Amino acid sequence: MSKLPLDRRTFLAGSATAAATTIGAPAYARSERRWKMVTCWQKNFPGIGTGAQRIADRITELSDGELTIKLFAAGEFVPAYEVFDAVREGKAEMGHDSPYYWISKNRSTAFFGSVPGGLAPLEQIAWIRYGGGQELWDELYSRYGLKAFVAGNAGMQMIGWFRKRLESLEDLQGLRVRMAGLQSEVLARLGATTINLPGGEVMPSLQSGVIDAAEWGGPWMDLAHGFYKVAPYCYGPGVHEPGTTLSLMVNKEAFEELPKRLQSLVQVAAEAETTQMLAEFTSNNALALERLIQDYGATIERLPADILARWFEVSDEVVAETAADDEINQRIYDNWSDFRRRSIGIAGMAELGFMNARAG
Amino acid sequence: MSKLPLDRRTFLAGSATAAATTIGAPAYARSERRWKMVTCWQKNFPGIGTGAQRIADRITELSDGELTIKLFAAGEFVPAYEVFDAVREGKAEMGHDSPYYWISKNRSTAFFGSVPGGLAPLEQIAWIRYGGGQELWDELYSRYGLKAFVAGNAGMQMIGWFRKRLESLEDLQGLRVRMAGLQSEVLARLGATTINLPGGEVMPSLQSGVIDAAEWGGPWMDLAHGFYKVAPYCYGPGVHEPGTTLSLMVNKEAFEELPKRLQSLVQVAAEAETTQMLAEFTSNNALALERLIQDYGATIERLPADILARWFEVSDEVVAETAADDEINQRIYDNWSDFRRRSIGIAGMAELGFMNARAG
Repeated sequence: MSKLPLDRRTFLAGSATAAATTIGAPAYARSERRWKMVTCWQKNFPGIGTGAQRIADRITELSDGELTIKLFAAGEFVPAYEVFDAVREGKAEMGHDSPYYWISKNRSTAFFGSVPGGLAPLEQIAWIRYGGGQELWDELYSRYGLKAFVAGNAGMQMIGWFRKRLESLEDLQGLRVRMAGLQSEVLARLGATTINLPGGEVMPSLQSGVIDAAEWGGPWMDLAHGFYKVAPYCYGPGVHEPGTTLSLMVNKEAFEELPKRLQSLVQVAAEAETTQMLAEFTSNNALALERLIQDYGATIERLPADILARWFEVSDEVVAETAADDEINQRIYDNWSDFRRRSIGIAGMAELGFMNARAG
Repeated sequence: MSKLPLDRRTFLAGSATAAATTIGAPAYARSERRWKMVTCWQKNFPGIGTGAQRIADRITELSDGELTIKLFAAGEFVPAYEVFDAVREGKAEMGHDSPYYWISKNRSTAFFGSVPGGLAPLEQIAWIRYGGGQELWDELYSRYGLKAFVAGNAGMQMIGWFRKRLESLEDLQGLRVRMAGLQSEVLARLGATTINLPGGEVMPSLQSGVIDAAEWGGPWMDLAHGFYKVAPYCYGPGVHEPGTTLSLMVNKEAFEELPKRLQSLVQVAAEAETTQMLAEFTSNNALALERLIQDYGATIERLPADILARWFEVSDEVVAETAADDEINQRIYDNWSDFRRRSIGIAGMAELGFMNARAG
């Protein structure tokens, strides 16, 4: 019994018979597919929402009508945190998400998004594409009938926005903070109460006092949310989530039914968006940080030293514990750990070395 | 008089009349173009040569035969350093290159590749895509009848491979070093003699003693060249060329003749290769660095402090001098300088801050 989408309309423009008897016309039947892409994001939310839309539009344009993708914002077809199940069950053929939203399915999904203290954006993309990550991701997601591709990266995040200044670890005790992924487990062990909310609910919850502090993204997205209006103290760098990868999930059965050329197109559209989104975040985060400080009076500070040190210690524990969940989790952790070790090994001779020298 | 390629074969599969009268067949004529891509690289050279080939193959595959790209390695159709002119004159429709190879045409081309002490790979891509770089690049290249896209990035480079250990600035005096772009002007002002050689000539020249030291790329490409066999002292970080962007140049007239969908395809293929190539370099550079040290006995050291400090000072001078060349050069420098200032401003709250904290 096929688990393919019930509502997908597939039809032929020109029957095979008509095409075959036409002088000079292409000798194949052109089939036109209409797919749904569900997303975890608000409609056209800067960077992630607009990026998902670009993927949908590009596949539609470049397939010349053979594969039309209609995007649904969070809540339009399914709620943000039901995207994984919707694509798994074939209610939608595609989803755009952050893989660490699915740690309740398997904690190792976090590695394909970002894990606390882990990899910087480029390292994260490099691990998945060339370090063995994609193969492990394929193996893990095939258990759910899914295939996923890196499809964007939101760059370095900020720790979050707080109503009151943080001076030491003591100030985190009992604070109610919005945070997702394995980073929420780290924060909980540091003494905070973590609450995972999708994007659309973060600002209202901060305003109403349901939460005391909000973590979402980097300066650009956080400026768009307007967190600074309620919680003016922002901390960085985002050691809790250093390289947020977004993914394009595809229902595996639907993907495998596509002609080879459309499969390549889906993959290329995801890859192109990775460059574009990360470039957009890199440029706009720097602009937004200046504006937040100069125009909006936000206070952007380095995380207090005792919190920073303890964050890495606890992160190492939380990330290592995922390995015990199952055999595949151990392999994901081992492969990723090797990659991280090599990344740290070269850093002083690469970006880190250059940026430190440039800073003088 | 058209400057378009003389040898391009354009033909129609099915005349417009036949298609229009066919029931159900697509109502447009399908035209099949065959284009040449000339490159500055040796055939399938790791990262840059294989990356250029992926761009050609993807456009060919995804256009379903409407645009077939045949790649020519350096010297197969034109020599490496004649790629710019070949595409400008329409001998080939496309080229894959490093923009700083063309400083003899205009010194500001360097900004679209990498300039000494400038921007890290992600910053470099972000400046071009979202910081105003692309618009300036379009304006500058339209003078030559060219349109260019970011189409890969080779990541952080190494300063180069030297026969003898460098202990101070004194040791650079009179050394004959392979180097290209504005970085060769910096090195010359530091006292070395610089020689610009295309990839295929670097190792032979090092072996024969024509040069004393060779700069090419990062650990992965340099391992492939085998520089360590002749010149075992390697220095980093690559402050001379921190974010090497590769470009896909297209003859502007040929590009504008393409249907809109094929124009988008060319752009998406370039964009997709940017992430993929940079991921490949990021992963393989880290692996290669380990191998160079552990298996090949290379000595990888930080550039002596006096050279490093002086390098930034002289780089600032050389880069700033480009602004005096012409009015557009001033605008490129000003726009880029603003972007660099903002990049330095956010670095401690982004990758730099994270990587320093991770290093402990």
